[in-house]
Amino acid sequence: MTTDPAPWRATILTLYPEMFPGPLGISLSGDALTRGTWALEARQIREHGIGRHRSVDDTPAGGGAGMVLRCDVLAAAIDAVVAPDDPRPRLLMSPRGKPLSQARVRALSTGPGAVIVCGRFEGVDERVISARGLEEVSIGDYVLSGGEIAALVLVDACVRLLPGVMGKVASGEDESFESGRLEYPQYTRPREWEGHAIPDILNGGNHGAIAKWREAESERLTRERRPDLLTRRKD
Amino acid sequence: MTTDPAPWRATILTLYPEMFPGPLGISLSGDALTRGTWALEARQIREHGIGRHRSVDDTPAGGGAGMVLRCDVLAAAIDAVVAPDDPRPRLLMSPRGKPLSQARVRALSTGPGAVIVCGRFEGVDERVISARGLEEVSIGDYVLSGGEIAALVLVDACVRLLPGVMGKVASGEDESFESGRLEYPQYTRPREWEGHAIPDILNGGNHGAIAKWREAESERLTRERRPDLLTRRKD
Repeated sequence: MTTDPAPWRATILTLYPEMFPGPLGISLSGDALTRGTWALEARQIREHGIGRHRSVDDTPAGGGAGMVLRCDVLAAAIDAVVAPDDPRPRLLMSPRGKPLSQARVRALSTGPGAVIVCGRFEGVDERVISARGLEEVSIGDYVLSGGEIAALVLVDACVRLLPGVMGKVASGEDESFESGRLEYPQYTRPREWEGHAIPDILNGGNHGAIAKWREAESERLTRERRPDLLTRRKD
Repeated sequence: MTTDPAPWRATILTLYPEMFPGPLGISLSGDALTRGTWALEARQIREHGIGRHRSVDDTPAGGGAGMVLRCDVLAAAIDAVVAPDDPRPRLLMSPRGKPLSQARVRALSTGPGAVIVCGRFEGVDERVISARGLEEVSIGDYVLSGGEIAALVLVDACVRLLPGVMGKVASGEDESFESGRLEYPQYTRPREWEGHAIPDILNGGNHGAIAKWREAESERLTRERRPDLLTRRKD
């Protein structure tokens, strides 16, 4: 018998720890959390707030709407949970960040885990981003009310790739996606439905022909919907 | 006194209705949900499953790993909650979809709401996608364990733009983002922290100079991190 490997560990710094594990506590990721395949801790940034009101934010220097998360408060929250020798990457969910890719998800999932800072308000004081080596990660070109749901996305994407969480299902799908192609169309019973039949080739049992058809369909869909994937380098 | 407008309405079709409202029931979106600014209903697809076990999926036609959501089951689930004259777009969260953009989020948020189908397993039978006019939407180039967390992303992005949810804060930030520029760096008190000072210009009170500096910083960050945004058309 071998020793179980250390679990993949996510530490979330947030003003809304009650949002976690949320959907990650249900279904396959929830089962894996219960089994100890991965671990999650959500820490309240406000514990390091200033004064009687545990204030965490202040108005933007130079003016403007909204509130900015203070560098001293966030740094204290980070320093309290992340030892200097913690090997995990420190991520800040932010629409200014590098777009998350499946290749990055895979790299993260094979590592020890991640420390994830969830921004709120208008932003985070720039000085703490560089002083604590936070890497800004964006899940897409849209704006959320905070980093919490973005953190759920990142953790879900990583956890499903951990050994034993989804089994064989995950790998095949990702290979298609990581190679820069969209998934081919899928069909299942019934064979005929509302006058629409499953494509003949899928009923034939000729596995070579089926593989070829699927590859061509992936190619066609990618060309139609995401021509940018065909030229983009993987990163 | 004027009548309150009809709330923005999200209907989610899922195998995990217990994931909703989840994080959307907390913080600003949760307050707005309580006030009736928007409404959420999560419906269990399995209610329309087949047989004693309420089966919803079957093996892929043509072979392969995973399970495919049946077209007849999903169509019945859609038909049970969406009247033919329901004006809301019908979205299917899927990595094969058109990438979500802030412009699309804004368009959705000014409409009546959305019907959102969350896929699971290896995919959804292709026939129901066309027969029920589902529009595939992707939140990014990575794979999740299902569409539920993607639906949380889409709804959160829309809800924060509804009148009264976030106030002035949202609009300024989005203008910068929708014009294809990343947000400029933000700072707040203390003026000096760990030897790092707030840039002098932000302390000066010269609003013209501050606006110019911020614009230049947005431009610089975009050029460094996301040159693709500078050439991409808005959609």
